[in-house]
Amino acid sequence: MNGAESLARTLLAAGVDTCFANPGTSEMHFVAALDRVPGIRCVLGLFEGVATGAADGYARMAGRPAATLLHCGPGLANGLANLHNARRARSAIVNIVGDQATYHAPLDPPLAAETATWAAPVSKWLRTALAPAEVGGLAAEAVQAASTPAPGVATLVLPSDASWGEGGIARGPLPVPGPATVGAATIDAIVRVLRSGEPAMLFLGGMALRAAPLADAHRIAAATGARLMAETFFARMARGRGRFAIECLPYNIEPGVAALAGVRHLILVGADDPVTFFAYPDMPGRFAAPDAEITVLARPDEDAPGALARLAEAIGAPPLAPPEATPPAPATGPVTLEALGRSLAALLPEDAVVIDEGITNGFGLYPPLAAAAPHDLLRHVGGAIGQGLPLATGAAVGAPGRRVIGLQADGSALYTVQALWTQARERLDVTTVILANRRYAILDRELAAVGAEPGPASRALFDLADPAIDWVRTAGGLGVAAERAGTMDAFNALFAAANARPGPFLIELAMP
Amino acid sequence: MNGAESLARTLLAAGVDTCFANPGTSEMHFVAALDRVPGIRCVLGLFEGVATGAADGYARMAGRPAATLLHCGPGLANGLANLHNARRARSAIVNIVGDQATYHAPLDPPLAAETATWAAPVSKWLRTALAPAEVGGLAAEAVQAASTPAPGVATLVLPSDASWGEGGIARGPLPVPGPATVGAATIDAIVRVLRSGEPAMLFLGGMALRAAPLADAHRIAAATGARLMAETFFARMARGRGRFAIECLPYNIEPGVAALAGVRHLILVGADDPVTFFAYPDMPGRFAAPDAEITVLARPDEDAPGALARLAEAIGAPPLAPPEATPPAPATGPVTLEALGRSLAALLPEDAVVIDEGITNGFGLYPPLAAAAPHDLLRHVGGAIGQGLPLATGAAVGAPGRRVIGLQADGSALYTVQALWTQARERLDVTTVILANRRYAILDRELAAVGAEPGPASRALFDLADPAIDWVRTAGGLGVAAERAGTMDAFNALFAAANARPGPFLIELAMP
Repeated sequence: MNGAESLARTLLAAGVDTCFANPGTSEMHFVAALDRVPGIRCVLGLFEGVATGAADGYARMAGRPAATLLHCGPGLANGLANLHNARRARSAIVNIVGDQATYHAPLDPPLAAETATWAAPVSKWLRTALAPAEVGGLAAEAVQAASTPAPGVATLVLPSDASWGEGGIARGPLPVPGPATVGAATIDAIVRVLRSGEPAMLFLGGMALRAAPLADAHRIAAATGARLMAETFFARMARGRGRFAIECLPYNIEPGVAALAGVRHLILVGADDPVTFFAYPDMPGRFAAPDAEITVLARPDEDAPGALARLAEAIGAPPLAPPEATPPAPATGPVTLEALGRSLAALLPEDAVVIDEGITNGFGLYPPLAAAAPHDLLRHVGGAIGQGLPLATGAAVGAPGRRVIGLQADGSALYTVQALWTQARERLDVTTVILANRRYAILDRELAAVGAEPGPASRALFDLADPAIDWVRTAGGLGVAAERAGTMDAFNALFAAANARPGPFLIELAMP
Repeated sequence: MNGAESLARTLLAAGVDTCFANPGTSEMHFVAALDRVPGIRCVLGLFEGVATGAADGYARMAGRPAATLLHCGPGLANGLANLHNARRARSAIVNIVGDQATYHAPLDPPLAAETATWAAPVSKWLRTALAPAEVGGLAAEAVQAASTPAPGVATLVLPSDASWGEGGIARGPLPVPGPATVGAATIDAIVRVLRSGEPAMLFLGGMALRAAPLADAHRIAAATGARLMAETFFARMARGRGRFAIECLPYNIEPGVAALAGVRHLILVGADDPVTFFAYPDMPGRFAAPDAEITVLARPDEDAPGALARLAEAIGAPPLAPPEATPPAPATGPVTLEALGRSLAALLPEDAVVIDEGITNGFGLYPPLAAAAPHDLLRHVGGAIGQGLPLATGAAVGAPGRRVIGLQADGSALYTVQALWTQARERLDVTTVILANRRYAILDRELAAVGAEPGPASRALFDLADPAIDWVRTAGGLGVAAERAGTMDAFNALFAAANARPGPFLIELAMP
């Protein structure tokens, strides 16, 4: 058995049965091994950022890692932005990067690059297999490292001679511990904080945003008067009718600081102490008031749902009946953000997976979706745009049978537009709604925040209307059927039809 | 003056008047400064790899650096593959990466990443401006470092507080030395080698592939019997009727080794000792015979054209009349690689800039283009695919008035397809010919080289026909008019018409 085959067999034994790939010459022995070892589904991306973003979406929905397969340092580089996002989302990925043979790299052939140097900042685990006999053991370690709380990216660099050489050894899976249990002393301390009478807020992130812990958090809030808030960007949240809704920390600094004003105790539950996305002159960098005391109920690697359940019991908080919500009627007439929110709330399919890379429009769609059918909402955690279409692609692979709805800004969709082709090829049930404002609208706001008037450079750099991108043709060219909607009536009809048919569909919605 | 304005003024003073940009929030003060400082042309790319690849193409044609403007670590990451290519091509680029404020980065906001770590492997010069007063001086150093032989990527990381803070100082340009003159002893040594009677080859790369040094190399060859060969992949070569043609080292190992077999003295002229792109089991990693003696006439940072002229004089090689060549008639009938070569040779516009990212088809087009009208041929030096469309975009900006012809494999075109939009926006005179074989055809060959039969994984990963990419719709969606050609007659008509009209056009040519 060569090293490549030991890799395929080890991955499969550890439950890694999906590989998002964009391979090249140095990966041919692994591809040949995949042909000999049945059971791994290979999903081709036409750009590496599609593969890495899809692996992130897969992990968020399947709860276990997929593999990626990338080609040398530059192929890894093309996937780094979405690996950065995956790292921030704490998504488990086994990131396999084929590379130059160990003895050839020193000759510095054209494609040689500092692969490990590039991988390190996004990787919680990083090794290079130097010989075929090492490959299986390192692959088992990679799956373990990626999956162990808090999950992340485990990168295995695979020189081609470690891949083709004989002496590979397939390994069994290594144990993956569950999240650490929060200590009783910590629970007691939080009980005292909540009973102190001082203003407190439970600030939830990560696994605390699933349905059961959200319900427990609401029990605690109702019993103690503590406020609840979720981190602005999160990997996955259970939402919709019959589920407990939670407000998000606003993205912008002033409303964000206002939202936390007066909070004396900020209790972190699977979330980090929130900081602003960027610094601005003479503005704070943290959202919490300077005199707020930060307390940790559960670190991201700890069992936040369990901690919330135990906290609710310790407080003696009675169970709450799930909230009732009536879906609105779909909006008619002209397209507005408010109208879109209403139509999505009315028409979202049951048990959908919603991907939000709506950027300037996305924030406005969060509140109305609370009244939609139950769904999971996946947001853009790391801030590197170009994640939405790949995330939707991988989520659809990782959650078969559920409709994936991508709410996608036009500017950011362009970065990884190749994902549409993978959706078509794999017949994935994805409905993409392009919120086409034909601007880098967020940059208009940021330039205004700088106090500058738009001039020739900013006009040249923010405007996407010359030429306008025709999403119907672009998507069609990549194999995804698409239509344009200029009114809410047209949108409603297209959205309902798209969600009723198998396979992908794209709606270009002209936003004001 | 703030740091951002000192950057704009310093770049302009040093002759950097073009900026390929994909900015974000942290770059707003620089964008605002560009609005106040007229004279810098801002060219927007909808993906960072478009901006960095365009800066490479610009440098190859204009002979001086453009700036890029990228957003934080992940934005840089998206541009790394084409910066890798630019590094290998020795193209001067002033690579400006906006980043988190110095005091905000330690809070680890979502978009924070190890920007300098990622930049280092592609950068010949790398600094981070820590205060506004440093920005102008570092910008002047960056232009100098990028331009000094051998040119390369100079990366200036610009934290937003260094950008917005007052105290910026605009600096004048720093001196840029020309290439070092080759010593007389080296010329004498090469004369002795060439007169030894032992089989010798001048192996040319870099600046030695311009028209005058190619003519001098042919003088030397005619007078001494030395053979001539060019590196497989080069940044720019003067070609076409009336110019001296040179054979390229083949890409594949067996023909490449055969081409250098029997060469006792391999004399490097602006080129490196050639090594294979990848290692293969039991195959050599260098092309030269093990007993060949490597001699250097000119290192890449030395004056290779001057050295060849002096060598020709020292040998007393008489001038040669420029070769004559008659253009063939365009091919008619079915599309074949040979027919395409003939039509291109017949119809290439005078003084065109030809970009070759044809991959499996590109090698076959090299010989026939020797009979085309005079042109510059730009090849893909670093091996990271997805360079062709951006390179064409930047070459058109850097060589106004000349038609740019992109010979583009379909697989690699997808990586940076967003470049088409920039071509449309800037009304660039680019004709893209998509060589649509609907395969990662090079991987078919590589899998066969491994000795494996195609199975389910390789079928899933190499085939681009399910769904077929419709290039006419995709290009049209991005604003570039396009047509499909299924015969050489149709291609001839489209190609001639495309080159006669202003602005970009794309031809999807169905390859067998």
